[in-house]
Amino acid sequence: MSTDSIRDRILDATVDVLRRHGPAKTGVVDVARALDMSHSNVYKHFASKSALFDAVAERWLANVMAPLSKITADKKTPAPKRLKAWVRTLAEIKRKKVLDDPELFAVYRSITENAHTVVAAHVKHMHDELAEILRDGVREGAWRVSDPNKTAALILNATSRFHHPAMVALHGAETDLKQMDALSDLLIAGLQS
Amino acid sequence: MSTDSIRDRILDATVDVLRRHGPAKTGVVDVARALDMSHSNVYKHFASKSALFDAVAERWLANVMAPLSKITADKKTPAPKRLKAWVRTLAEIKRKKVLDDPELFAVYRSITENAHTVVAAHVKHMHDELAEILRDGVREGAWRVSDPNKTAALILNATSRFHHPAMVALHGAETDLKQMDALSDLLIAGLQS
Repeated sequence: MSTDSIRDRILDATVDVLRRHGPAKTGVVDVARALDMSHSNVYKHFASKSALFDAVAERWLANVMAPLSKITADKKTPAPKRLKAWVRTLAEIKRKKVLDDPELFAVYRSITENAHTVVAAHVKHMHDELAEILRDGVREGAWRVSDPNKTAALILNATSRFHHPAMVALHGAETDLKQMDALSDLLIAGLQS
Repeated sequence: MSTDSIRDRILDATVDVLRRHGPAKTGVVDVARALDMSHSNVYKHFASKSALFDAVAERWLANVMAPLSKITADKKTPAPKRLKAWVRTLAEIKRKKVLDDPELFAVYRSITENAHTVVAAHVKHMHDELAEILRDGVREGAWRVSDPNKTAALILNATSRFHHPAMVALHGAETDLKQMDALSDLLIAGLQS
């Protein structure tokens, strides 16, 4: 078996154990037992419980980013359309995750709360992609943005009701994606003026 | 002593007891004991523990609203300026509350989480005030807003990073009120276009 698929199997088992016992009662030994593997074998791939949990968070967040990065890279589509699609897709992914399996969402949420470095890298990644779309829009003449980094942070904040895990956990079920679109339209109109 | 000041004394004592023992271990009897009062006397003013907790939440939220309502009522100031001041003031109040006394903020947060009717009335109140400012702006010719109620909801959502209790509890310390102002400017520019 390739190293990648062993890693993935360990991460899958970790999520299962987390789901049953919660983060406090989940350790490398429990994951090894669930896989019928020696714990020294698990340690070969993950040096500690926190490295294991970080890897769980990282894989989860990478799955969130993949469709967003496609939108960012699609340079043939005008920037305003991409900005709207990017934010909408992010909101859709988060809403779907919490509605489809709230228990699993809670597991990932509790893991990401402690994976500060992983989450910071994820936020920076989202931020950089939005800044890239904003710079593309400036080049296209769609809007004037003097500081794409500041504006990217502002747009992430303005839309956090629709994608921040704390807000999605509280209000995900009531999320109205039409309102998300209306908010994007308003923000884009603001950028254009 | 007037009924109002007895009510206030009971609510103050409730907050003290909540702070020490948390909502699960705070009952009417504990509050009465803290006040050296018979519990039947407390029950004269509050029919149940949940009525008492609701009243705590209501008073807290009324304090948040008071300065906002002043801004809403100040019809001499142009609507865009009032909209910006209203949102900024809301963000400032919440930020101050969590930074000055995070423990007390946590007490109120846990109380409001269960005071659904009180919180719904508060959200409606905020919403109605924003809609009023938006309608004033339409009359002044500052912007075109086809549905002030929908737009009010949208602005509350767009600024929730700065005032929603869950977000303030998580990120209140890092809140940059300049970014709040920049967001208001962007939203107002969007409304004007």
